[in-house]
Amino acid sequence: MPAVAKAPLEVGVGLRVDQITSINQKKENFGVVASLMLEWKEPQLATRPDEDVPPQRIYKASDFVNMLTERKLLWPAHSFYNLQGRVDYQNQFVAVDSQGNVKYFARFSAAFQAPDFDFTHFPLDTQNFHIKLIALLPTSDIKFKAMTDSSGLSEELGEEEWILAHTGSKITTHTSFGITVPCFILSFQGKRHLNYYIVRILVPVIIIILVSWFTFFLKDYGKRIDLSSGNLLLFIAFNFTIANDLPRLGYITLMDTFMMATFGITGLVVLANVWLRRAQRHGREAFIDRMDDIGVWAYPLLYIGGGFLVFLMSYL
Amino acid sequence: MPAVAKAPLEVGVGLRVDQITSINQKKENFGVVASLMLEWKEPQLATRPDEDVPPQRIYKASDFVNMLTERKLLWPAHSFYNLQGRVDYQNQFVAVDSQGNVKYFARFSAAFQAPDFDFTHFPLDTQNFHIKLIALLPTSDIKFKAMTDSSGLSEELGEEEWILAHTGSKITTHTSFGITVPCFILSFQGKRHLNYYIVRILVPVIIIILVSWFTFFLKDYGKRIDLSSGNLLLFIAFNFTIANDLPRLGYITLMDTFMMATFGITGLVVLANVWLRRAQRHGREAFIDRMDDIGVWAYPLLYIGGGFLVFLMSYL
Amino acid sequence: MPAVAKAPLEVGVGLRVDQITSINQKKENFGVVASLMLEWKEPQLATRPDEDVPPQRIYKASDFVNMLTERKLLWPAHSFYNLQGRVDYQNQFVAVDSQGNVKYFARFSAAFQAPDFDFTHFPLDTQNFHIKLIALLPTSDIKFKAMTDSSGLSEELGEEEWILAHTGSKITTHTSFGITVPCFILSFQGKRHLNYYIVRILVPVIIIILVSWFTFFLKDYGKRIDLSSGNLLLFIAFNFTIANDLPRLGYITLMDTFMMATFGITGLVVLANVWLRRAQRHGREAFIDRMDDIGVWAYPLLYIGGGFLVFLMSYL
Amino acid sequence: MPAVAKAPLEVGVGLRVDQITSINQKKENFGVVASLMLEWKEPQLATRPDEDVPPQRIYKASDFVNMLTERKLLWPAHSFYNLQGRVDYQNQFVAVDSQGNVKYFARFSAAFQAPDFDFTHFPLDTQNFHIKLIALLPTSDIKFKAMTDSSGLSEELGEEEWILAHTGSKITTHTSFGITVPCFILSFQGKRHLNYYIVRILVPVIIIILVSWFTFFLKDYGKRIDLSSGNLLLFIAFNFTIANDLPRLGYITLMDTFMMATFGITGLVVLANVWLRRAQRHGREAFIDRMDDIGVWAYPLLYIGGGFLVFLMSYL
Amino acid sequence: MPAVAKAPLEVGVGLRVDQITSINQKKENFGVVASLMLEWKEPQLATRPDEDVPPQRIYKASDFVNMLTERKLLWPAHSFYNLQGRVDYQNQFVAVDSQGNVKYFARFSAAFQAPDFDFTHFPLDTQNFHIKLIALLPTSDIKFKAMTDSSGLSEELGEEEWILAHTGSKITTHTSFGITVPCFILSFQGKRHLNYYIVRILVPVIIIILVSWFTFFLKDYGKRIDLSSGNLLLFIAFNFTIANDLPRLGYITLMDTFMMATFGITGLVVLANVWLRRAQRHGREAFIDRMDDIGVWAYPLLYIGGGFLVFLMSYL
Repeated sequence: MPAVAKAPLEVGVGLRVDQITSINQKKENFGVVASLMLEWKEPQLATRPDEDVPPQRIYKASDFVNMLTERKLLWPAHSFYNLQGRVDYQNQFVAVDSQGNVKYFARFSAAFQAPDFDFTHFPLDTQNFHIKLIALLPTSDIKFKAMTDSSGLSEELGEEEWILAHTGSKITTHTSFGITVPCFILSFQGKRHLNYYIVRILVPVIIIILVSWFTFFLKDYGKRIDLSSGNLLLFIAFNFTIANDLPRLGYITLMDTFMMATFGITGLVVLANVWLRRAQRHGREAFIDRMDDIGVWAYPLLYIGGGFLVFLMSYL
Repeated sequence: MPAVAKAPLEVGVGLRVDQITSINQKKENFGVVASLMLEWKEPQLATRPDEDVPPQRIYKASDFVNMLTERKLLWPAHSFYNLQGRVDYQNQFVAVDSQGNVKYFARFSAAFQAPDFDFTHFPLDTQNFHIKLIALLPTSDIKFKAMTDSSGLSEELGEEEWILAHTGSKITTHTSFGITVPCFILSFQGKRHLNYYIVRILVPVIIIILVSWFTFFLKDYGKRIDLSSGNLLLFIAFNFTIANDLPRLGYITLMDTFMMATFGITGLVVLANVWLRRAQRHGREAFIDRMDDIGVWAYPLLYIGGGFLVFLMSYL
Repeated sequence: MPAVAKAPLEVGVGLRVDQITSINQKKENFGVVASLMLEWKEPQLATRPDEDVPPQRIYKASDFVNMLTERKLLWPAHSFYNLQGRVDYQNQFVAVDSQGNVKYFARFSAAFQAPDFDFTHFPLDTQNFHIKLIALLPTSDIKFKAMTDSSGLSEELGEEEWILAHTGSKITTHTSFGITVPCFILSFQGKRHLNYYIVRILVPVIIIILVSWFTFFLKDYGKRIDLSSGNLLLFIAFNFTIANDLPRLGYITLMDTFMMATFGITGLVVLANVWLRRAQRHGREAFIDRMDDIGVWAYPLLYIGGGFLVFLMSYL
Repeated sequence: MPAVAKAPLEVGVGLRVDQITSINQKKENFGVVASLMLEWKEPQLATRPDEDVPPQRIYKASDFVNMLTERKLLWPAHSFYNLQGRVDYQNQFVAVDSQGNVKYFARFSAAFQAPDFDFTHFPLDTQNFHIKLIALLPTSDIKFKAMTDSSGLSEELGEEEWILAHTGSKITTHTSFGITVPCFILSFQGKRHLNYYIVRILVPVIIIILVSWFTFFLKDYGKRIDLSSGNLLLFIAFNFTIANDLPRLGYITLMDTFMMATFGITGLVVLANVWLRRAQRHGREAFIDRMDDIGVWAYPLLYIGGGFLVFLMSYL
Repeated sequence: MPAVAKAPLEVGVGLRVDQITSINQKKENFGVVASLMLEWKEPQLATRPDEDVPPQRIYKASDFVNMLTERKLLWPAHSFYNLQGRVDYQNQFVAVDSQGNVKYFARFSAAFQAPDFDFTHFPLDTQNFHIKLIALLPTSDIKFKAMTDSSGLSEELGEEEWILAHTGSKITTHTSFGITVPCFILSFQGKRHLNYYIVRILVPVIIIILVSWFTFFLKDYGKRIDLSSGNLLLFIAFNFTIANDLPRLGYITLMDTFMMATFGITGLVVLANVWLRRAQRHGREAFIDRMDDIGVWAYPLLYIGGGFLVFLMSYL
């Protein structure tokens, strides 16, 4: 019986992420503890009614693969396409019932590449993550079938920073070095909890801006210049702190725009106050008073306007 | 004799944590060096009186498993459900006595997920930790029995930051991919030593607040504004230092509330002093003096009141 | 039949970088997930028409090597010359067809040395990276042939900081301990996205310089001295931040020149203002006014001139 | 011959620490490269005079253990009780002479727990370290004997921070899960080189205190308040730097007392100067002058007294 | 034939460092990728003229060792004495020619202890590094012979911070636990590129000193005190930055002396200016003017003198 004539072996694939140990946006990868189940039927492993074997036979995976190899049966060898480094298997075993239904179970820790990171709307961004399991045998030998019940994310991921949702799984194919193999993809989406960015960045920046606004009610231009210069340094420090969160991107994020806007406005405030002080020295008090009355309201409006623009940009 | 008729193998489980190598609240895991003992009776391994074997036979675990597999005997294969990464076994061996009582001993280093972290009351929080051992065979084959004497935490954990107590162990079941297996859970609770938070955060913050209070006894509003703005920056630096201790949470901790309160009060103080200085420039001295007399007492009361509120919140 | 008479085994080599997990310029290495394909013909593995074997036989690499060793056939043993640490193989297998065409596939994670880093033009530098695969058998036994179709960089490298291009592969030889072996080199070039350096370094430095320029429009030399001294400290902090990005080099980078120029100019500005203030104290107001009018324009011109020189140097 | 009648096997234990790769006081562990020698007599391995074997037979440890197991001879299986993580064996071999004297040699890298850290007198503290080797067989089977000549610390430990001395070894027993096994303990003590704490902490703190003392010779209370507030911030920064060196303890160290004392004194200085300035504004010049004359001497005496108290406390 | 009569096996040793992956002066170790060649003659592996074997037989090292063990031939087992952690072998194989000349090749990544670090003249220090290969068999069985042609450092070490030279190799013996084994030592020396210390430390310190010198030309003692106090803080920050580069030593380095000198001089400058200001308040203008004229030149001379002393000390 020629091997080519055989229909491909139909293998059910279930992949469940039990824990998310890390999401590293600088390295663009994520670590998981996950469970993989493969399910297929191998009639040659069915027992005859007269055989004295337990209804459920348990094998270590390596022993089972050796047994299949010896009996020239097909083993759905597989690999994770977007894996990084090593897979640490916690356990790997196979259960076979009397009809020859084979179930392969594995539990492992691994890190996967997340190449789809797009930080344009950071920190209001939505990111896509996936795990891509490919067979090592071509589509003519193996056919994948998604077991959606056994796939997805568990309840206790242990991930605090991201809100993970929109889990999905699909079957596709992957072509590498000219060979087309079946491919199972588990995907999910993540949005950030904004609490951190509000408490650590937004609130401090707003309080600093408010405090420097308060000084507009005093006619002390020197103090205003000092405070604004100081704020500038502070915003530069913020800028570096935020930069350490992200890889060194080739594009501007929403957060960058926000920080650049605070830079620009603060720089303008220094300029305006230098000009006012110069005017003061030249004795143009009436002009200064008029300017000052404008400044007291222009300053917050400038920020509110800038903030609104940044907000608008986040929807582009 | 059909296999299904057999009663499940009763396996005593003892798990003792010898060392806690780390508690990582950002990654929400903890590392331990622990000892596991499994105990069961296998009559087929009992010796006949005429056999010349030592009363206590010692096997390497891997040799013993192979021997059981060959003799088609049950091995209580197990796995740690909340394990992260790899288990490093320091030793693994089995002792069998002449009645067929089997004792499996293992000593290992491993990291476990602690998904129950709740930082709402941080740093006055109480956290729950557990290690979950599951069998790889269903409840029909294996039954766990907790050996409470051999379970718990050792005396020399080498953990300085947490006060660990309320150790407990229980037997339950775990269902995964539709299969129900027995499950042993060792759990314990941790509270923080507060010394660090008092010496590094509370005392400095109180001294800074006191020092800026002292300036209220001077009628120098400029200096007060400078000092308050400086304090603001300092509190922002504190805020970031504290943020690095915790994962980026989706909720506000007690510490966050405390820091936000100091932000808010310090901002109000700047506002009040700007207002007073403005009044001073407009020559309203009597009003200022009255305000100042109030401020000297309102300032510490504001903090004491805020501190009391934060304290109350820690009991919600 | 003497072994020396045999023509060398011709082995096609394809090496594709699927992911770049890191480019570490301090350690001068880079991490990849890559796929290696070796292709050669072993007539002794061809099947006779009457044999009942599948058209495509799949082997684990280790089993295949053992089989070749037993049958005294040549295995193109190889090694990565610029590897650092360990190769983590994700999968390694061999497919043999009925004509005896052998295809070896391996997918692995590894770190490779990048000894060609030259930071003279940092951050406008172009760097060369390569992976060097050497055979462990001499050129008399093995001959490499580059499979350019199967070599190169994939689309989803997951690398954000560098623009990688100019991929090439070539066959050469490598001599070590007096033995000459065939060698396959995959090389590529990287240029940096400049966004990071513009947003985090250039823009802040320009705003700071502008702000201290604004103070030139005030006749307050004390304030100018304070601001310039402050800027000096800031530039020193920048200097250290940048230093942490690079190894401790034995030469000056373009960025160093830029930072040293800002140091020098800022130092000169302090000197000039101290001199002006001294003149002011001696009552030489006319002289000061003339100097000041010059300073207001000389200051930005000094920076623009310096910037232009640095720009020119980047083309040397 | 029943096995129980046998006297326990007497095993000589020599453990020499060749390198100390790290002492991590935050994790409370230390890393070593060490050499272990076990020595015992196995008459059954003696050679008969007519046998043609070399006088010294060398075995790989794993081969030797297998040989003993086959011949039902006792192998002194052992384990390190306070090990953390994995032992990396560099080599492990056994030499047997013609009388049956067996010598087991192993060289390994490993990390051990140091649970006895007590930081009360930090940085004048003395710490105890130990390595605890336990047999895996009960005292009825194995008896340990300390080989003091072959135990201890080598000359070139490569440890710069600690002065290690008082090396000792002793034989004791260890009971775990109700089984008592022999136990060998190698212990040593460490004291810190104080150079770091003098050059990085004490000298800077003293210079800062001196500099703020100098300002007492000026009648500028505003400057004194500024400088003292600045010092306060600096001491807080020092406080955090020191905190990063230690685990988060549940008690106060000598260094904490020292830092808290500098906080307190500096806070008092601010208070005193605010009071003096207030007095100045109310025109009580004579009182101020008298106070100032006292302050100039009280300030250093306060610090010297505080320092002396801290010094005394270090002997409690 | 008694084994003792045999002359020791003469083994040629060649060790070439291909890459230096790190030099960690805090941990006092260095990482390398290196190639080891051992060469000896085993007449029993020579082929008879009539045998049909290839002129060059290639073996995996493990297979070869097993073969030697079976045929009771000597294998020059070896180990690295100053190794830390694990050796990661990239490849290990053996080539045997028809005369029985055996060549063992290994390529590996490893970290070695560098216990000879002496930082007294840091950063003008010269450090010694070595790799110590010891045989596991005594000098009566094995004799080492240095193959100087095959030993040394490669051209592309990938090390930027150090200038490595004075490579040498020598044969000696090592005695451990009373057994004397042959020992091969590869040693080399390293000096630092000084560019980093000039650009990041020396130039900033000199510019800061110059800028504070400029203020000596103004009669503003308050500003001088502020600037000097500020410099003191900056030097303390520098001090900590430098401290992080080195282990916590029990002695003073040249760099420490330099930093302490800048502390001391800056402290004196504050003292002098406080004294001058006090004199100013007491109206001793003539005295101040004379002092000031001296100070303007004494200040740089103090630094130049101090610098010269530090320079002299570097030759002690």
